[in-house]
Amino acid sequence: MHISEITHPNQLHGFSIRQLEDIARQIREKHLETVSTSGGHLGPGLGVVELTIALYQTLDLDRDKVIWDVGHQAYPHKLLTGRYHRFHTLRQKNGVAGYLKRCENKFDHFGAGHASTSISAGLGMALARDAKGENFKVVSIIGDGALTGGMALEAINHAGHLPHTNLMVVLNDNEMSISPNVGAISRYLNKVRLSEPIQFLSGNLEEQFKHLPFFGDSFTPEMERLKEGMKRLAVPKVGAVIEELGFKYFGPIDGHNLSELIETFQHAHKVKGPVFVHVATVKGKGYELAEKDQVGYHAQSPFNLTTGKPHPVSKPKPPSYSKVFAHTLTKLAENNAKIIGITAAMATGTGLDKLYEKLPQQYIDVGIAEQHAVTLAAGLACEGMRPVVAIYSTFLQRAYDQIIHDVCIQNLPVFFCMDRAGIVGADGPTHQGMYDIAYLRCIPNLVIMAPKDEAELQRMIVTGVEYTEGAIAMRYPRGNGFGVPLMEEGWESVEIGKGEILRNGDDVLILGYGTMVYTALQAAEILSEHGMEATVVNARFVKPLDTELILPLAQRIGKVVTLEEGCLMGGFGSAVAEALLDNNILVSLKRFGVPDKLVDHATPEESFADLGLTSSQIAEQILAAFLTQKHKQPAVVS
Amino acid sequence: MHISEITHPNQLHGFSIRQLEDIARQIREKHLETVSTSGGHLGPGLGVVELTIALYQTLDLDRDKVIWDVGHQAYPHKLLTGRYHRFHTLRQKNGVAGYLKRCENKFDHFGAGHASTSISAGLGMALARDAKGENFKVVSIIGDGALTGGMALEAINHAGHLPHTNLMVVLNDNEMSISPNVGAISRYLNKVRLSEPIQFLSGNLEEQFKHLPFFGDSFTPEMERLKEGMKRLAVPKVGAVIEELGFKYFGPIDGHNLSELIETFQHAHKVKGPVFVHVATVKGKGYELAEKDQVGYHAQSPFNLTTGKPHPVSKPKPPSYSKVFAHTLTKLAENNAKIIGITAAMATGTGLDKLYEKLPQQYIDVGIAEQHAVTLAAGLACEGMRPVVAIYSTFLQRAYDQIIHDVCIQNLPVFFCMDRAGIVGADGPTHQGMYDIAYLRCIPNLVIMAPKDEAELQRMIVTGVEYTEGAIAMRYPRGNGFGVPLMEEGWESVEIGKGEILRNGDDVLILGYGTMVYTALQAAEILSEHGMEATVVNARFVKPLDTELILPLAQRIGKVVTLEEGCLMGGFGSAVAEALLDNNILVSLKRFGVPDKLVDHATPEESFADLGLTSSQIAEQILAAFLTQKHKQPAVVS
Repeated sequence: MHISEITHPNQLHGFSIRQLEDIARQIREKHLETVSTSGGHLGPGLGVVELTIALYQTLDLDRDKVIWDVGHQAYPHKLLTGRYHRFHTLRQKNGVAGYLKRCENKFDHFGAGHASTSISAGLGMALARDAKGENFKVVSIIGDGALTGGMALEAINHAGHLPHTNLMVVLNDNEMSISPNVGAISRYLNKVRLSEPIQFLSGNLEEQFKHLPFFGDSFTPEMERLKEGMKRLAVPKVGAVIEELGFKYFGPIDGHNLSELIETFQHAHKVKGPVFVHVATVKGKGYELAEKDQVGYHAQSPFNLTTGKPHPVSKPKPPSYSKVFAHTLTKLAENNAKIIGITAAMATGTGLDKLYEKLPQQYIDVGIAEQHAVTLAAGLACEGMRPVVAIYSTFLQRAYDQIIHDVCIQNLPVFFCMDRAGIVGADGPTHQGMYDIAYLRCIPNLVIMAPKDEAELQRMIVTGVEYTEGAIAMRYPRGNGFGVPLMEEGWESVEIGKGEILRNGDDVLILGYGTMVYTALQAAEILSEHGMEATVVNARFVKPLDTELILPLAQRIGKVVTLEEGCLMGGFGSAVAEALLDNNILVSLKRFGVPDKLVDHATPEESFADLGLTSSQIAEQILAAFLTQKHKQPAVVS
Repeated sequence: MHISEITHPNQLHGFSIRQLEDIARQIREKHLETVSTSGGHLGPGLGVVELTIALYQTLDLDRDKVIWDVGHQAYPHKLLTGRYHRFHTLRQKNGVAGYLKRCENKFDHFGAGHASTSISAGLGMALARDAKGENFKVVSIIGDGALTGGMALEAINHAGHLPHTNLMVVLNDNEMSISPNVGAISRYLNKVRLSEPIQFLSGNLEEQFKHLPFFGDSFTPEMERLKEGMKRLAVPKVGAVIEELGFKYFGPIDGHNLSELIETFQHAHKVKGPVFVHVATVKGKGYELAEKDQVGYHAQSPFNLTTGKPHPVSKPKPPSYSKVFAHTLTKLAENNAKIIGITAAMATGTGLDKLYEKLPQQYIDVGIAEQHAVTLAAGLACEGMRPVVAIYSTFLQRAYDQIIHDVCIQNLPVFFCMDRAGIVGADGPTHQGMYDIAYLRCIPNLVIMAPKDEAELQRMIVTGVEYTEGAIAMRYPRGNGFGVPLMEEGWESVEIGKGEILRNGDDVLILGYGTMVYTALQAAEILSEHGMEATVVNARFVKPLDTELILPLAQRIGKVVTLEEGCLMGGFGSAVAEALLDNNILVSLKRFGVPDKLVDHATPEESFADLGLTSSQIAEQILAAFLTQKHKQPAVVS
């Protein structure tokens, strides 16, 4: 059967191993073809093709529920749940999402873009099932990287305490999160992987027995009992920790052997209470280049399937913010042994792998553990180090209490560098860096800034490292800078709480924050063409806001506009509104940013246009709002 | 020696066991005397008297650093670090804090009021020490309740991965957090507690050997080796999980046996790399009433030491918000099996123990695991249940990402009930519920409300349970209600997004949120005495804000005041500022709330007065700002 004919995963029921292997081959083919064309997560999905097929063959997915952690490994799941024909639209606007979404498909029981949530969600569903007196299976799949995230361990602790609640946890153990895993749990799992597997009812064990001289070919009921006994003996050896935590342990299973997977799942489904199936997989399985470079092929831009190389770009792009960040920080760290860069399993994404290459002693990867990363940084700061915590805006949400309670209440000098702040594009709502301005602005003892471009990013890194009076946070976007000239050394810090005027005009005051400063300048040019002259300010700091600069300008010009790449509720424009009204400056304010709704996956350009945040859209709206008789030009911008 | 003479913990060095026991007795005496008089945490401190003394005798606290988790068990630490003479000011304004604070004492190396942070902080200090080439000991103490918090497990995972980083974790295992612990880890620890302890070099073991017929009194080097061997044999039996995670395990130790504690600590200090000392303590040790009722004597109002009963109050107080919440929710749950109350180890604090008593099947205590609590609720909501997550405002910060990522992005109907929102009094900065309005307001798909009093709380519980279009959050304060009449049943929900006018006047518009509505009414009365008539609105919802009601009033009256018990940055007043300016209503706005600084421990009344948030202070400021010629009365309020 061709997988295009599979619209419901239950169609796999009754397939022979050979048929399933054929399905697996087709999934890999489609997966590779699609991701090489449209970009997306490559290695994770390739690693779980057999796991997905085997699991789905043993479940009734009209009733049973499978919860995939993160969701970036769920492309095989998508191909088996009726999305084959739309799969070429992966990660494109209005196309198939790169992660799971409850609203996209009825088999997507729980959406996720962040790690470590699947056991909690699955346990919730299992408890609801039992409360309602229903009877279906719940399977939570989690990676070994995600397993070390605090909430997954909280969930394990809870589930293991409920012997009467049926829940299967499948550990997809590929020895990687995005980068190789760190941590004691990972080392333990590795030890278990290397130990003798338990071959439940499998031919392998029988084969081994047969070759023992005193057994030979005689395979008796006694031998079955012996096997059972050996199993029980074997369990404490390999899965002791898991069993101590209240789970029945199965594994480690070869995650690319369909028969072994199916037999184990069938066996494990019969267990009452929490059960843990440990599956050893190879990230990137079936695509040699990805198997060899598991970090490089975790997620991809479009690439050539044969060479594995990204398609050549017509003209070279400016360096990404992440790259400039990592390069500059590494340069500073070379001359300042107190600087310690901290990442939570995002070494390549944040660029901190560059710091690690040069200065491994000044680099810490804590694994998927944002909470620990921040409080560890607080501890380092207590001892006079300069911890630089590089975490995506969206993932820093995980450490919100630690920022407040461990860093800011104690006024400790930790430097937060929030990559992927603002619109992130194809990753969609779970990854948008929308809320950081608002969620940080309310915390005392915190300076918050954003550079207008990659050169100012360099200066702000210096600013953050030099600032020792308390905590300081900087946001910068995903993607490439503007291509402005960069310096190799000798950067000057910017003054805390001071903005700068970039353009003068008497008709409207445009306050830009972060990368929207360039949009402000472009909009000002358009306005000028229509006879409206704008003063443009690069605010640099949302906290402390440069009221000395802004308020007199606002008072004089009388019409104020704010631009930000983040949520409008409580954000930069909100800070300006507070400042104006607190000082009884009653002037018009028009705030541009992201309204109170989720921003779906699309290209960043598409998202900006949808949100009315391009420079021409903004200019048009400013003209519509503020154009008065004085201005002679037509109001409509083409 | 009398403990009043101890100003530095190193003074304990060289004390005999008998002398230390005397110090222990004196600490208990002072502890009981103080807490019975001023209130505070009773059981936790009593349980760690010997642990503290023994540890401090084996450390050089001019160099070594001890990190206490939460800090509410650190009263003995306070008494040994120069705070004896001020200890009677415990938890009073400008007095000794109820938790640890870096700014209070040089031996308070890391402040904490939330659980599970000490290992992360300690590891940060240890890594800084090694980076600087220094050489001191770092000891992180953590309770068994706090150990199951996700970030503690993240830290264990990291520390266990660093075999060359010296760090001691002391587990204060009293089998309790505030309520008895839940979870697989707790059950495992209990199993370990009940197993044979390892008696490192202790007299006990020697004694046992001596009584074996084939050893008798002969105590030879061979026997030393045998003992070592037995030790190694014993370890895997009791501390297997800890050792698998990379720690050298010692224990379980009797936490009230000073010699055993000292010998074990001395031994454990010599270990290289991460070491884990498991100490079994009794919460409330030495005060019989507290030992017997460990939940009841976790923290106390002032009480009679002999009877253990709180001092009689002159007149009965209205019920607390928590009590009304729990009672009402239980009533609703009796008729709605879909309601599930969820707490994170705060059954008594939130009042949910009452739900448990009546309807244990509709109650879940996940332990100290706020992240898991919220995503578990999301899972329950997926299956049509009505999860009600009752978590203090300050602790909900731990689950911030889960609120965004697992609940609101998926638009799941979870009902968040935030107790202790606003000023909390004696618990101080770590417990103030200051930020929830701001940190929640920026999240899409979330309704946010606050009742003006305990009767409206009842109605809003109905509102929250009935609302199924998405997530909904309600905040209410610590302490007693206003004593308004309550209903036993038949509550009506309030309309989503609708406020109410409580008083009419043409001179100023006062918008109150939550309990500040009463302050608004009182202020309005004072204003009236001065000829200024206020319209007072109970906003009820900060999101969606009732702009239909508020904006025309603001436009007409022209002077607007907002009152809230929370941070001004991004809070309720900020929402009003946004709404006014977005609609180009250019009127004066004066926002009252908590400015951008920490609020220290004090009585709530003292805090309100310090913040200028009493009704007379507010009235005075309104008069100063808005009194015009029209008003004939004098402006000053006595």
